[in-house]
Amino acid sequence: MLAAIARSASNHRRSWWSPGQAVVRAAASSGGPRPPYTTLAVSQPQQFVTHVELHRPEKLNAMSRAEMVELFSELAGNPDCRVVVFSGAGKMFTAGIDLMDMASDVLQPVGEDTARISWNLRKKIAEYQETFSVIERCPKPVVVAVHGACIGGGVDLITACDIRLCTQDAWFQVKEVDVGLAADVGTLQRLPKVIGSRRKGTGSRSCFVPAAGLVNELALTDRKMFADEAASSGLVSRVFADRRPMMAGAMELAGEIAGRSPVAVQGTKVNLLYSRDHSVAEGLDYMASWNMSMLQTEDVMKSAQAALEKKSPKTVVFSKL
Amino acid sequence: MLAAIARSASNHRRSWWSPGQAVVRAAASSGGPRPPYTTLAVSQPQQFVTHVELHRPEKLNAMSRAEMVELFSELAGNPDCRVVVFSGAGKMFTAGIDLMDMASDVLQPVGEDTARISWNLRKKIAEYQETFSVIERCPKPVVVAVHGACIGGGVDLITACDIRLCTQDAWFQVKEVDVGLAADVGTLQRLPKVIGSRRKGTGSRSCFVPAAGLVNELALTDRKMFADEAASSGLVSRVFADRRPMMAGAMELAGEIAGRSPVAVQGTKVNLLYSRDHSVAEGLDYMASWNMSMLQTEDVMKSAQAALEKKSPKTVVFSKL
Amino acid sequence: MLAAIARSASNHRRSWWSPGQAVVRAAASSGGPRPPYTTLAVSQPQQFVTHVELHRPEKLNAMSRAEMVELFSELAGNPDCRVVVFSGAGKMFTAGIDLMDMASDVLQPVGEDTARISWNLRKKIAEYQETFSVIERCPKPVVVAVHGACIGGGVDLITACDIRLCTQDAWFQVKEVDVGLAADVGTLQRLPKVIGSRRKGTGSRSCFVPAAGLVNELALTDRKMFADEAASSGLVSRVFADRRPMMAGAMELAGEIAGRSPVAVQGTKVNLLYSRDHSVAEGLDYMASWNMSMLQTEDVMKSAQAALEKKSPKTVVFSKL
Amino acid sequence: MLAAIARSASNHRRSWWSPGQAVVRAAASSGGPRPPYTTLAVSQPQQFVTHVELHRPEKLNAMSRAEMVELFSELAGNPDCRVVVFSGAGKMFTAGIDLMDMASDVLQPVGEDTARISWNLRKKIAEYQETFSVIERCPKPVVVAVHGACIGGGVDLITACDIRLCTQDAWFQVKEVDVGLAADVGTLQRLPKVIGSRRKGTGSRSCFVPAAGLVNELALTDRKMFADEAASSGLVSRVFADRRPMMAGAMELAGEIAGRSPVAVQGTKVNLLYSRDHSVAEGLDYMASWNMSMLQTEDVMKSAQAALEKKSPKTVVFSKL
Amino acid sequence: MLAAIARSASNHRRSWWSPGQAVVRAAASSGGPRPPYTTLAVSQPQQFVTHVELHRPEKLNAMSRAEMVELFSELAGNPDCRVVVFSGAGKMFTAGIDLMDMASDVLQPVGEDTARISWNLRKKIAEYQETFSVIERCPKPVVVAVHGACIGGGVDLITACDIRLCTQDAWFQVKEVDVGLAADVGTLQRLPKVIGSRRKGTGSRSCFVPAAGLVNELALTDRKMFADEAASSGLVSRVFADRRPMMAGAMELAGEIAGRSPVAVQGTKVNLLYSRDHSVAEGLDYMASWNMSMLQTEDVMKSAQAALEKKSPKTVVFSKL
Amino acid sequence: MLAAIARSASNHRRSWWSPGQAVVRAAASSGGPRPPYTTLAVSQPQQFVTHVELHRPEKLNAMSRAEMVELFSELAGNPDCRVVVFSGAGKMFTAGIDLMDMASDVLQPVGEDTARISWNLRKKIAEYQETFSVIERCPKPVVVAVHGACIGGGVDLITACDIRLCTQDAWFQVKEVDVGLAADVGTLQRLPKVIGSRRKGTGSRSCFVPAAGLVNELALTDRKMFADEAASSGLVSRVFADRRPMMAGAMELAGEIAGRSPVAVQGTKVNLLYSRDHSVAEGLDYMASWNMSMLQTEDVMKSAQAALEKKSPKTVVFSKL
Repeated sequence: MLAAIARSASNHRRSWWSPGQAVVRAAASSGGPRPPYTTLAVSQPQQFVTHVELHRPEKLNAMSRAEMVELFSELAGNPDCRVVVFSGAGKMFTAGIDLMDMASDVLQPVGEDTARISWNLRKKIAEYQETFSVIERCPKPVVVAVHGACIGGGVDLITACDIRLCTQDAWFQVKEVDVGLAADVGTLQRLPKVIGSRRKGTGSRSCFVPAAGLVNELALTDRKMFADEAASSGLVSRVFADRRPMMAGAMELAGEIAGRSPVAVQGTKVNLLYSRDHSVAEGLDYMASWNMSMLQTEDVMKSAQAALEKKSPKTVVFSKL
Repeated sequence: MLAAIARSASNHRRSWWSPGQAVVRAAASSGGPRPPYTTLAVSQPQQFVTHVELHRPEKLNAMSRAEMVELFSELAGNPDCRVVVFSGAGKMFTAGIDLMDMASDVLQPVGEDTARISWNLRKKIAEYQETFSVIERCPKPVVVAVHGACIGGGVDLITACDIRLCTQDAWFQVKEVDVGLAADVGTLQRLPKVIGSRRKGTGSRSCFVPAAGLVNELALTDRKMFADEAASSGLVSRVFADRRPMMAGAMELAGEIAGRSPVAVQGTKVNLLYSRDHSVAEGLDYMASWNMSMLQTEDVMKSAQAALEKKSPKTVVFSKL
Repeated sequence: MLAAIARSASNHRRSWWSPGQAVVRAAASSGGPRPPYTTLAVSQPQQFVTHVELHRPEKLNAMSRAEMVELFSELAGNPDCRVVVFSGAGKMFTAGIDLMDMASDVLQPVGEDTARISWNLRKKIAEYQETFSVIERCPKPVVVAVHGACIGGGVDLITACDIRLCTQDAWFQVKEVDVGLAADVGTLQRLPKVIGSRRKGTGSRSCFVPAAGLVNELALTDRKMFADEAASSGLVSRVFADRRPMMAGAMELAGEIAGRSPVAVQGTKVNLLYSRDHSVAEGLDYMASWNMSMLQTEDVMKSAQAALEKKSPKTVVFSKL
Repeated sequence: MLAAIARSASNHRRSWWSPGQAVVRAAASSGGPRPPYTTLAVSQPQQFVTHVELHRPEKLNAMSRAEMVELFSELAGNPDCRVVVFSGAGKMFTAGIDLMDMASDVLQPVGEDTARISWNLRKKIAEYQETFSVIERCPKPVVVAVHGACIGGGVDLITACDIRLCTQDAWFQVKEVDVGLAADVGTLQRLPKVIGSRRKGTGSRSCFVPAAGLVNELALTDRKMFADEAASSGLVSRVFADRRPMMAGAMELAGEIAGRSPVAVQGTKVNLLYSRDHSVAEGLDYMASWNMSMLQTEDVMKSAQAALEKKSPKTVVFSKL
Repeated sequence: MLAAIARSASNHRRSWWSPGQAVVRAAASSGGPRPPYTTLAVSQPQQFVTHVELHRPEKLNAMSRAEMVELFSELAGNPDCRVVVFSGAGKMFTAGIDLMDMASDVLQPVGEDTARISWNLRKKIAEYQETFSVIERCPKPVVVAVHGACIGGGVDLITACDIRLCTQDAWFQVKEVDVGLAADVGTLQRLPKVIGSRRKGTGSRSCFVPAAGLVNELALTDRKMFADEAASSGLVSRVFADRRPMMAGAMELAGEIAGRSPVAVQGTKVNLLYSRDHSVAEGLDYMASWNMSMLQTEDVMKSAQAALEKKSPKTVVFSKL
Repeated sequence: MLAAIARSASNHRRSWWSPGQAVVRAAASSGGPRPPYTTLAVSQPQQFVTHVELHRPEKLNAMSRAEMVELFSELAGNPDCRVVVFSGAGKMFTAGIDLMDMASDVLQPVGEDTARISWNLRKKIAEYQETFSVIERCPKPVVVAVHGACIGGGVDLITACDIRLCTQDAWFQVKEVDVGLAADVGTLQRLPKVIGSRRKGTGSRSCFVPAAGLVNELALTDRKMFADEAASSGLVSRVFADRRPMMAGAMELAGEIAGRSPVAVQGTKVNLLYSRDHSVAEGLDYMASWNMSMLQTEDVMKSAQAALEKKSPKTVVFSKL
């Protein structure tokens, strides 16, 4: 059975799962969101693995800013969560931030002159950006599993995750230019650092390559990118035949990560992100200052011991972090 | 018929095409350069699409610094241009900056001692760099279409463009090391940010990969990279059988971009370039300050309206920018 | 026969090969390390090409910090070395820094309280980092040829090299998380700048892609990456059937580089690394200040002359650098 | 009488002053903190001026992290606040973060090994840092008025403010080294950007200078800096004979700022801080993207009109921001 | 008599002074601007010293963007100019960019919606910024001499100069906030890097300090800073009793600089500016790459020879640069 | 008597003072340098305080690159050294790097063409830079005491120190421009970060200020800066009547620092330097990662205990670091 999500409004900031909770097997969420969430179904299918599901079928899984920020802030500090699997319920991953909602924000300006409207818009954009940056700031790795459509804000979301998987029927679309705006909540900033501007090709039958895959092209037109190209461009790292094997694969991968030292795993995420935004020399300096304490973990001894005994690191019981 | 290019020397800074000009169909330039240009043929094959053609067959399309700078500075501010297609006339794309010319610059030093010669060389290098940086600074996306050889400065040029296409017979060569110098006008700076240092492989017949494709290898030897590898490495996003379909494809892609909101398209280019050179956090901050005004465009409402009516954004008439 | 390596302890800083030494043909090292090295076999198989071989079979070619630093500091200033080929002797490339040794460093803390232990650990980490950074700082290109296992510190090492080759039986593993620590001597900093987070795929028989290849996945689990994926992800630029053809290929590539102007080649390496860590604008500015003197080399005239005479640049005799 | 501060617990995020509140004259707070604050007395002595007073005399005005963050987050978005005056009640400005408290945090480690204790300490340090960074992020200028002692965390606090004033009996002390730690919540980062490493000197009576004033000296010893030196070093911009005239001066200065265009004032603060942390070129670029919308404020026309009519900008009624 | 400024429109880019021109003595300009300038009087009072005078008395020396850019671009490449003295004609230095003009630019928006107006404003701001950045980019040191008022854009201008002098009656005012805008053409970016946020004080009669001098205070209010405070805050490096001695002092200082090696002087300016915007490590690396050629100047030998013969470096004849 | 400096050539890297050495009182060096140093006299006048004296009177204390690097590398790791006092023996502090030597380096180029000469010069410049950067990298604070002349390289040296003191007869001169070169070993990079570009003034008798003090002026002319101006500009933090009281003052200050927690003191130096070269946000992040381990020192408890008992931190016995 799934984790009992019991979080009273008065218990602000308390974890929403019961301690000592049994490992659950099912990867599918049961029954959808529970309070305090109305758009996200949160469960714990295995020990240390949190499954987050966009669950708002009537809105094509359009994301809710506030709930995302609240959830990931909580997960960041929750020792029972060591890795997150993120997916969408129903027919598709997500149609993004409801662009019509967003447009209506824009079309109903707040403020008495252009400067004041701009000031307020800037705050709103920053809030939208936070919806996804909070995923990146969470030190627990996030594996995202996409099926069907992943549009607009969905692309912003997955580029803020650490590992991307998809089904054969998945497709991705940077939609913003089509509604008259430059994508401003993460796609233009993170997509180039995820897939560069490259593409492979070489189908097995023809001698020239009929596809294209640039960030620039994706960002400037409404071209859809399908699963194969997503894999060959490096946007996703694995394509599955269907949703069921994808979720199984995501859970297995999450289990691999969850079974390793959280000191090592979370330190790795923090430093990979630091390195992305700094020179190699600065990355090395930061790493040394980081690991001068982190190497003093018992996890090294425990892991080394397991290695000597030819056991998997997953057999080791690590202290909570 | 093509755009009448009539730009008198006395009319410095005026646009070189007549307002209200009819959309033209032909992608090929007719008759080559017209004043003030002697090496570039400029036309407007579709509304909002400018076609620039290197047209200097007797010099293998060697580029002229001054004309490139003048043209792209003009295009940057020209509201009738929303996207640029760049190609080469004749047998090849370009043999680059005439390296013999460049070498002769170097071999005829100006200045009375080494320091002064160096000072003058530095100015000259900066001018050469400007030839290509001006493309990057132009906020209109540039689609470049390469056939045949693209050598030396040609590689500098295409890495400063936004989307790269090529024919099956195209090949690319970083030539500088062979004439005793480190490439100093953009290749070493931009090529790694375009293709990283990676390579694909996997021909359909053999189980191991006999090719190689690193930036380092390209920069350190005279190895030619052919079309397939250019596609698989991400240097180009599409390979066409021949020049004619490539130009048709380039024009179609340009039309897609030209039909969308120029506020969205040009804001996207500006911010993609900003993000390339900054951390994600800085990119997001800049984006928010950018879009706090740009979101106030009518284009959002017009585009949203079109979307609601299931029309393409290309049916919308956007104000000039 | 191989270069006679005769370097007396009293002759600190003198080159360890005899001047005017004949070009040798064999790529394989003969007899292993000679003083002052005990873990590295150093030879000069061709003019201007230095072959460095990890040669410590009883320790699975675990690397020795001190010898790496000493050797590459020497090579950096040695005009007889213009390019380095790096490989491993015996059954595998390397099992990395002996992680058990490293763990024992960690498990035997030095210092009277946590702060002091941390202070000393930081110094130790910085020393380990230097083992590989010294390769990057050496201005001569380093071609690394990997066969069999390349584990842990081996990955740190190869990401600090300039061009990577491997055999069909090679495999790569970021091992650190399995022993409870975040990789802190280069992998997290350099691997993402080498391979990004992408992967291609497309085997010739199936229509979807069963593989995965993210830096994140590699860094967070113990997944092994095999030769084909290493090639398709861009980690290596060429895969060879076996060790013998790989070494021949490495030597041929090294010969190509060694035959070109050392001013051009080494300036290219210095500026490619500078560009990796700076914005395009800063890279261009540095390049201009660099080449304002470097363009004044005779090598340009010599190379241009050879080009006019349709000779290879390798026929030119360049002055030592 | 002072502003009635009525903020119910259930009314989270609502402003704590009544709209249309009369301008009050008294600068001194009456009666101390009101809910939700227990350590801060908040009032509105003039229109658009918020007075914040550390009011915890029994603890020497030791600061409360949580209340500072809550208050300044609220002020950031409160249009009735255009400038903040910050001061301390009672005998001194503040003895800082209660260093004994902080030490006890440190002496009662949380976590099962050194790595986990470090992880938790890092979170705690980040929270302490936030206490002061929230002042900097608030776009309203903060004028701080110091009397008596300003120790440890007090120095962190005032360096995060925009303008510093003090009385003749004020003194400043970077205390951290004396309790065995490097100052980690802002002093080492901001103090050098406030006062550099310089000193004035030359009293009128003696021919040599007996004082010293380096950041380094202050940070490395327990030397107290008194009012005169604080003024000559630029730490404070004005010294007053006593507390009463200082508060009058602070209120007058705050009134000057509050009377000007909030679009201009807050844009100035945002861009001064941006410039502090970026190159001049980056600062100019950001400024241009900022002001492209902000210049479209009515405030420019209103202010220009006032200037033409020889009226003070303070006579203009600006829309709320 | 002054330099004959004869620059025909057809002779675009030719120097405006006759070669071999005799050194002139008078520092005051005679007769004001000559073509192509209408607001700047340019003369050559000594060999290698160019005197530029704002000469637009009817407009309180309001600056002309286009002429500033044209003049300083020319001076940058003119070997007869090794140092510039900049001053204002008539009653004051300058009332700045005509803020009313600028406001009218702002009040007459160009573009069909807010986004397009913003786009055009951004271009205009960038052009205004260029008016002063061109001074900074000119490698010849600029000594600015201020008398009377220096308001608004005048402050932008002098912070882009290298050395600032003033008369006893000079005063400085950052005026922008008073007209409803954040200063966007250099003051917020450069003033903090010139004067930090400090102040000295200590009049000889009183025991406390009645003045104040923060960048923040200057930028946020309309406070005027007078000569003494400008000196004590480091904004100017010398205060003169009157205009005549100031101009004599400026010319003497300019002569000192003009008499030294232009390779050394201009390399010093370039690297001081580079260092301002980079870390110390980056500054040192750039410096090394700069001087590896610049040290090869004959000027070192000539200067060393003069030093050995106890002659001033000003007696040395340096080649032109 | 002074510390017995006994360091045999065979004992490479061993500390040069005997363990458990008694505290010595005399600040003056006795008898000058001892092996392995020939230009530096090194002693230990108090526990944990190392006194380094330039002692090469026949060469006006010209500095020796190699010895500086060797000594400070050693001090960096020597737990008996917690603070360094640096001074000069004889009539003056130092005449700098022997500029004539340096010029001769330059005048006797090594390499067969300009590029190769440049390459070798760059290495030489980097080595010179290292002479002073090694002081900065040493985590122990360095107090420098200057008497008499401090010229050229002497200015490079003192700007790499942490606290500067001088006698009334001291003077400082950036000499490089006078010998035809831009200062390339630290002055242009560090001096602006030490003194900014400011000036004090206001003698007690006259109403205007006849002096000047800009970095630019110092760097561009041969103006000498005397003690008073050095103090008022912040270059030095204290001026003493004579050499004897200065050395006493330096030793007293060094004693203050040496008596405090070395974890706190050295962490403070490391982070102050980090902050100088990074934004405030990056400085705070690095600080948090640093102190997450360093706060776990016993020194905090010991220091807090001493504070509670009203004892000086200097009475505490800290473990070695």
